[in-house]
Amino acid sequence: MLKKNLAVTAAVAGAIALLSIPALTVAAKGKPVQVANDGRAKCYDCHDEVKALKEGSKHAKLSCKVCHDKLDAHMSDPEKNKPVTLIDAALCGKCHKSQYDSFFEVNYEAPARKEKGTPTGRSPMQDKLLAGHGFTFEHDEPRGHAFMVIDQFAVDRFQGGRFQFKEGWKGVTSTGKTWDVLTDTGKKLPETAMAGNATCIQCKTSDHLLKWKFMGDKDPRAKWDRSSNVVDVAKDTNNPLGCVHCHDPHGTQPRVVRDALIQAVEKDPKGNIFAKNGATDLKVIDFRGFRKIGVMQKTDSRMMCAQCHVEYNCNAGTQWSDGKPVKYDDIRTNHFPLKNSLQLLKHYQELNFFDFKHAITGARLIKFQHPETETYAGSVHDKAGVQCHQCHMPKHKGKDGKMFSTHGVIRPKNHVKEACLGCHPKDSVAKKAYEIDAVQNYVKGKMRKAEYWLGQLIDTYAAAQRMGVSPAVLDEARAKHEEAHVLWEYWTAENSDGFHNPDLARESLTGSIAASKAGVKILNDAMTVAKKDEPKK
Amino acid sequence: MLKKNLAVTAAVAGAIALLSIPALTVAAKGKPVQVANDGRAKCYDCHDEVKALKEGSKHAKLSCKVCHDKLDAHMSDPEKNKPVTLIDAALCGKCHKSQYDSFFEVNYEAPARKEKGTPTGRSPMQDKLLAGHGFTFEHDEPRGHAFMVIDQFAVDRFQGGRFQFKEGWKGVTSTGKTWDVLTDTGKKLPETAMAGNATCIQCKTSDHLLKWKFMGDKDPRAKWDRSSNVVDVAKDTNNPLGCVHCHDPHGTQPRVVRDALIQAVEKDPKGNIFAKNGATDLKVIDFRGFRKIGVMQKTDSRMMCAQCHVEYNCNAGTQWSDGKPVKYDDIRTNHFPLKNSLQLLKHYQELNFFDFKHAITGARLIKFQHPETETYAGSVHDKAGVQCHQCHMPKHKGKDGKMFSTHGVIRPKNHVKEACLGCHPKDSVAKKAYEIDAVQNYVKGKMRKAEYWLGQLIDTYAAAQRMGVSPAVLDEARAKHEEAHVLWEYWTAENSDGFHNPDLARESLTGSIAASKAGVKILNDAMTVAKKDEPKK
Amino acid sequence: MLKKNLAVTAAVAGAIALLSIPALTVAAKGKPVQVANDGRAKCYDCHDEVKALKEGSKHAKLSCKVCHDKLDAHMSDPEKNKPVTLIDAALCGKCHKSQYDSFFEVNYEAPARKEKGTPTGRSPMQDKLLAGHGFTFEHDEPRGHAFMVIDQFAVDRFQGGRFQFKEGWKGVTSTGKTWDVLTDTGKKLPETAMAGNATCIQCKTSDHLLKWKFMGDKDPRAKWDRSSNVVDVAKDTNNPLGCVHCHDPHGTQPRVVRDALIQAVEKDPKGNIFAKNGATDLKVIDFRGFRKIGVMQKTDSRMMCAQCHVEYNCNAGTQWSDGKPVKYDDIRTNHFPLKNSLQLLKHYQELNFFDFKHAITGARLIKFQHPETETYAGSVHDKAGVQCHQCHMPKHKGKDGKMFSTHGVIRPKNHVKEACLGCHPKDSVAKKAYEIDAVQNYVKGKMRKAEYWLGQLIDTYAAAQRMGVSPAVLDEARAKHEEAHVLWEYWTAENSDGFHNPDLARESLTGSIAASKAGVKILNDAMTVAKKDEPKK
Repeated sequence: MLKKNLAVTAAVAGAIALLSIPALTVAAKGKPVQVANDGRAKCYDCHDEVKALKEGSKHAKLSCKVCHDKLDAHMSDPEKNKPVTLIDAALCGKCHKSQYDSFFEVNYEAPARKEKGTPTGRSPMQDKLLAGHGFTFEHDEPRGHAFMVIDQFAVDRFQGGRFQFKEGWKGVTSTGKTWDVLTDTGKKLPETAMAGNATCIQCKTSDHLLKWKFMGDKDPRAKWDRSSNVVDVAKDTNNPLGCVHCHDPHGTQPRVVRDALIQAVEKDPKGNIFAKNGATDLKVIDFRGFRKIGVMQKTDSRMMCAQCHVEYNCNAGTQWSDGKPVKYDDIRTNHFPLKNSLQLLKHYQELNFFDFKHAITGARLIKFQHPETETYAGSVHDKAGVQCHQCHMPKHKGKDGKMFSTHGVIRPKNHVKEACLGCHPKDSVAKKAYEIDAVQNYVKGKMRKAEYWLGQLIDTYAAAQRMGVSPAVLDEARAKHEEAHVLWEYWTAENSDGFHNPDLARESLTGSIAASKAGVKILNDAMTVAKKDEPKK
Repeated sequence: MLKKNLAVTAAVAGAIALLSIPALTVAAKGKPVQVANDGRAKCYDCHDEVKALKEGSKHAKLSCKVCHDKLDAHMSDPEKNKPVTLIDAALCGKCHKSQYDSFFEVNYEAPARKEKGTPTGRSPMQDKLLAGHGFTFEHDEPRGHAFMVIDQFAVDRFQGGRFQFKEGWKGVTSTGKTWDVLTDTGKKLPETAMAGNATCIQCKTSDHLLKWKFMGDKDPRAKWDRSSNVVDVAKDTNNPLGCVHCHDPHGTQPRVVRDALIQAVEKDPKGNIFAKNGATDLKVIDFRGFRKIGVMQKTDSRMMCAQCHVEYNCNAGTQWSDGKPVKYDDIRTNHFPLKNSLQLLKHYQELNFFDFKHAITGARLIKFQHPETETYAGSVHDKAGVQCHQCHMPKHKGKDGKMFSTHGVIRPKNHVKEACLGCHPKDSVAKKAYEIDAVQNYVKGKMRKAEYWLGQLIDTYAAAQRMGVSPAVLDEARAKHEEAHVLWEYWTAENSDGFHNPDLARESLTGSIAASKAGVKILNDAMTVAKKDEPKK
Repeated sequence: MLKKNLAVTAAVAGAIALLSIPALTVAAKGKPVQVANDGRAKCYDCHDEVKALKEGSKHAKLSCKVCHDKLDAHMSDPEKNKPVTLIDAALCGKCHKSQYDSFFEVNYEAPARKEKGTPTGRSPMQDKLLAGHGFTFEHDEPRGHAFMVIDQFAVDRFQGGRFQFKEGWKGVTSTGKTWDVLTDTGKKLPETAMAGNATCIQCKTSDHLLKWKFMGDKDPRAKWDRSSNVVDVAKDTNNPLGCVHCHDPHGTQPRVVRDALIQAVEKDPKGNIFAKNGATDLKVIDFRGFRKIGVMQKTDSRMMCAQCHVEYNCNAGTQWSDGKPVKYDDIRTNHFPLKNSLQLLKHYQELNFFDFKHAITGARLIKFQHPETETYAGSVHDKAGVQCHQCHMPKHKGKDGKMFSTHGVIRPKNHVKEACLGCHPKDSVAKKAYEIDAVQNYVKGKMRKAEYWLGQLIDTYAAAQRMGVSPAVLDEARAKHEEAHVLWEYWTAENSDGFHNPDLARESLTGSIAASKAGVKILNDAMTVAKKDEPKK
C-alpha cells in the first residue's frame, strides 16, 4: 500500500542527462572515489550525475536499493523496465527520526479552520474586499506542514467542498496519508468555490516530482501537467512536501525542486532577492529537458522555503491589455514574481495578468499567496545574514539525546527562547516577545486602517455608480482600487503580521491607505458636482 | 421568611386526579409495599398517585412532613385547609449537598454582562441585524443557572431596566434570593426595552409550579397566567429553577414540568426530536386538568434540559396572514416548536406568528431563544446516545468523598478531561480541545459571513428604497431577508458555536448566506435597471 | 552630559517672590528652627519661602548643594550668576531607589504600539468616527509613565512621524533619555499627522518647569511658551514627568505644578471636583507672577494625577460663534475644564472652542484626552474617600525589605490582590477580578453600541446629503452628531473602560446612542419626504 501510493516509476530517472556537477561533493574535490561493492558501480555506468552527488557524501554508504525497487529488471532491459523510486518521507525517517517525527507532530498552538475573515482574524473585512474571489468562501490561517495537503483539499473553496474528513471533525488532527484522512464525497456543497489546479498542488507535495515536467508543460513522459484535471491530481496526492523538496536524496545536498522558483532565479541570477554580492549559491541541473533541480553548496533556507513561501501565480486569469482569458496552457499560470508588494502591481501589469475582478468596483485584482520570502528580503534580519530556519527550525534535543533542527516549523512568538535568544543572548524572553508584539500591533493597526479605507472606496464607488457619475470618473477610482488593493492584500497573505519586514509593511500599507483615500476623494468630488447639476428639491 | 417566599399553598395538590402510574417505581413492579408507620398511610388514602411515585423509591423513607407543612389542619378539614408544599432547593440540599452547592457556586469562567453585540461576541452585528428588537439594548452571554433569574431581571431590555443590583456592581456575584440581590427602582432608564412576560419567567424558575395552570391559561386556582403583569410575577420570583424541575420530589423519578414541552411531545409522540424507535420514555400525568408533568423511567437529560434550552415563543407578536397582533390570551404566546433552524421559518409561517419587524427592511423576523436541544437532535453525539448531562454535568468527587454529578453546569471546553475523555479515553485533553476549537472556528467563520451578507442585504435595501425601486422588488428582497435571518439568528442564540451539530450549522448558515446574496442581487439588478431609465447627467 | 541635559539654570529660582507659606511644615508650627550649619542660612536670607518648605521637613537634612550647582558664583553675584537646579529623577532616585526603579521598570503587561482603532481595541470605529482628526493616523493604548515622552514623539500623528527609534523596533523597550532612544529623521512619512504643540508636552515632562511661565504665556524669562515651535521644545525634552511634578523637592510636600489645573481649581475653589465640604487642601503659591505651584498638607493623589489624567485642551481650534481660528496666543489653548462627559459639550460651547470638523458631516467635534479624574469624581469609590494611588500605586516590599508605593503605576485588573483586597479583605481575587470584568464588559457593550449608532448617523448623513435633503435638516442632524460624539468619544479616551464610574458611563453612552438615533431619524424622515416628491420610476 505504501509502495503503491508513494513510489513512482522512474520514467524520468532513466532519462537523466549526463551532466558534470562540479564540486557538489567531497568526492568531487579531486580525491579518488572508492565505490562500495554493492552493485552500484553498474548503476553509475549510466548515471554518473548520481555518482557525482552520492560518492563522498553522507549518503555514500547507502546502497541504491535503499530507495530504488525493481533494479534487477531494470538492469536486464533498461528501456522496458523502469525502476521504482521511493520518495516517502517515512523511508528517510528511519534514520532521521527526530526530524521526521517533529514534522508530523500536531502543533496544537496552530488552530484548525480558523477563518481569517473574522473580527480577530488576519483579514476581517475580506468578504467585502475580496468580493468575487473564491477565498471568500473559506480562508483559514495556516497550521503547519503536516496538514498542508489535507487542509488544501478540505477547505470550502477547493472543488466545491467535495473532499471531507472521513472521521468528521475528529479527522482534523489526523496527519496520515491524504486518502486515509479524507474522502471524496463527489458532492458540491453550497457556498463553496471551485478553486484548485494542478500547479498549486506542486507547492504542497513532493509526490509528483517525477511525474511533472519542468514548469508543468505537457510531455508524454509527464503524468501531470498544468492543465490536468485537479481532482485527478489531488487523488494521486498522498503526502505533504517530503524531505526531497529540500534535501537531495543521493547526496544530502541542500536543494530546491520547485520549477517556477528555479526559473525566476535563473532569469535574474545577479539581482534576484537571494543574491548576495551579485550571485547565489545555486547550481541548476537540467535533467534532459524534463526537470531541473537547484543544488547548493551551503544551506540557504531562504531559497528552500521560497519554494512555497512566496507570492506565485498558479491559476488561470485574465489579461490587462484586452480582457482575454489566460488559461492553463499559458506559462503565466506557473509563475513566481519574487517581488514585493511595492513592485507587484507593475509586475503583473507587465506580465499582462490579473486574477479576478472585484464584484462591486470591477477593479482588476490579485489574490496573493504567502509572500514571506519577498517580504523578508532586504529586512534587518536578512541583511544580518539570518535565514528562515534559524528562527523557525531551531535546534532541539531529540529523544535520542542528539540535537536536531525541528522540522515541525515553529512560531517564534511562542518559542522566543529557542527562536530569538540564540542571537540575542542578553535579552529576556519577555523583552523579545514584547518587541515582536509591538511590531505586529503596529502593522495590524495599519492593516485595519487600509481595510477601512478600501471599504470606504468600495462603498463610495457603489454610491457614485448609483448616482450616475461618469464612467471616466469611475475608471479613475477603479485604478486607485487596483493600486490600494495590491499594497494591502499582500499583508493578509503574508504570515508574519509585518514582523518579517516592518518597514516594508509600513510603506506598503500607508501607500494603500493613500491610494484608497485618493479614490474616495475622486468619487466624492464627482458626486458633489453631480448633485449641483440636479434640479433642486 | 424562607417559608413565606418559597412554600406554596397546595391548592392544587389536593386536587390531583386519581391516576395509574404503571411501573414508575420498584414498588409498582408487583412487590407488596410495606408502608412506613409515620402517618403517611392516611395521606395515601386520598393521594394514591403519590403513593405510586413514592413507595419503593429512594424517597420512600422520608415522611410526608419533610416537604409539607400544616398537615394536621389539612387532615382535619381537607377542603378548607390546604397544606403547604416546600419547594426550595435548600431543603433538597440538606441531603444532596454536593449537588446543591455546585448549583450555586459562581463559575468565574463565565463572565457577567458580556454583550454579544461586540466584535468578539457571538453576534457582533446585532445592532444592525436585529434593528427594532429589544435584544439590541442588552444581549449578554449566559453565565449559568444560579444567575438565570437575576440576570433576566437586571438586563437592560427587561422592563426598562427598573430592577438593579442592591449593592451595585458588587452584587453581580451574589447568588441569593432574587429580592435579596435586586431592588426595584421603579424607574425606566434610557435606552432600555420593556421586554419580559409571565411565560418567559416559567423557564427561569420553579417558584410558580403550583400557581400556574397548564400552558398558563387563566384559572381561578392559578395565581398567575400568561397575561399576568410581568412585574408582579417577577416580584413573586425568588429562585432560579429548582430541583423539582427535573426530579420528582415524591419518588426521585426523572421528570419534566414545563408545559409547552409536554404539549409539543404529546403532539407528536412518535416523531418528536427525542423519540428513538418511534417513542419516548415520557409518561404524561394530568393533574385534574390543572397541570401536567412528564415522568421518565430512565433519565433522558435531553428532555429535562429541553424545558428551557429550546427555541420557544413566550411573547406577543403578529400574524403573517393579516398583520394583526397576537396577544397573551393567545396560546401561541407559550409555544415550543421543537424544530431546527432549517424548519423554523416554515413552522412560524404555518403557526401564523412572527416576533418583530426589522426597522429598515420591514422583514418579519423571529428572535430565537437558546435552541440547544433542537440543534443537538440528530447530531453525531445524539445518534451515539450521548445526553446533555454526560458532557455538561460530569461526575466529580464531592467534599464528602462521594462521586456526584456536578449541578454547576460546565462548559466542556474548559473541562475537557471530565467532559470528553470518559467516552474518548484514548485521546488527550489537548487533542479534544483542539477539535472543539476547530468546529467552533469553522462555524464562527460562517456566522461572520452570514452576518456580513445580511448587513449587505439591509444596506442595499435601504439604498434601493431611497432610489425608488418598485415595491414588488422590495417585497421580493424582504422575503429573502426573512429566510436568511432565521437561518442565521438561530446560531447567535444557540450556545455551542455550532459544536452541538456542525453539519446543521454549516447547512443553515450557508443557506443564510445564499438567501442574502440572492436578495442583494435582486436589489442590485433593480437598481441597475432604474439607473438606466434615469435621464443622463 | 546628564547635567547638561537635565539641569536648568535657575533664571526663575532667583526671582521667587517672598511668600508666607503658613503651616506647610512641622517647622512652621511654631517650633524654633535649628538651621543646619552647611551654608544654607545664607540661602535663606533671600529665599525664606524655601526655608518655610524645607526646615522641619524630611528633606531638612539635605544641603542646598544636593540639588543646586554653581552656588558660590551665585552668592558672589546673584543677578549675574544664576545657580543651576538639578531636577533629574535620577538624583531623587539615589535615596528613593525603589520608587525610582519601579517608575522606569518596563511593564510587559502593557503592550507597545497597540492601535485603539482595531476590532479589539478601545475605539474600533475611530477611522470613521474621528474622520478628519490626526488621531486617526495612530492612536495607541497607553503603556506607562516611563514611555510617556518617547511614545508621544514617536507616534505617527506627531510631527509627520519624523522622530523614530534609533535602534528600530528594539528601541521600543528602552526607557532612557529621550534623545538616546529617539532620533530626528527630519522626514515626514506618508499617512502621518502634524500634531503636537508646546503645551501638550508640559503634561508629559517636568523638564520645562523653570522655562515655562504660568499658563505658557510669553515672557522674556521663559524659554518656551504656548506658541513655541514644537520640534524645538521636543528636542529640549529628555525625561518623562519627574518626581518634582508631585513632590516638592525642598520639603517633600505633596504638590501640583501643572498650570491649567491650578487655574481651574482656583476658578472654583469650593465647587471643583476635588473639593470635599466646599474646599480643597491646596495652597497655591505664586512665584513673582511667573509660575504657581499648589502644595497640600496631605496627599491627595486625585489632584496630583489630575495634572495629566484629565480632559484638557492644548491645541489650536475654532470658535463655535464665528468659525474663526483659535491660535496659540489664545489662553484657551491651555485649558482644563475639569468637567465630565455630560457637561463638556456645553462647556466647550460656552468657551467658544472646538477641536475639529468631522470630515463627512462637518460636525464640530472635540477630541478628548484621558479624563480619568473627572470620571472618577463622584463615583462610589471617590465618595468612599479612595484616591488614585490606593488602587494604582499599592505598597510593595522593595529589594531593601522596606514597603514602598510602587511608582510603576499598575493596572489593578492584573494585580487585584494589591489593588483591591486591602479595602475588600473578605473577597477573593477571582471575585474582584470578575466584578471589574463585569463592569467593563457592560460599558464596552454600550461603547460599541454608541459607535454603531454614530456610524449609522454619519452614513445616513452622507446618503441624505447625496439625496439633496435641505441644509436645515442637515444642520439639525449635525447638531445631534455633535451631542452624540462628546457623550461617546470621552470614553475611548478614558482609560478604565468605565470602571472609574460605571453610572456616569451608562448615562453618557446611552445619551450618545439616543442622540445618534434622533439624528438618524431626522435624516430618514427627510429622505422619505424627498422620495415622495420625486417623479415615480
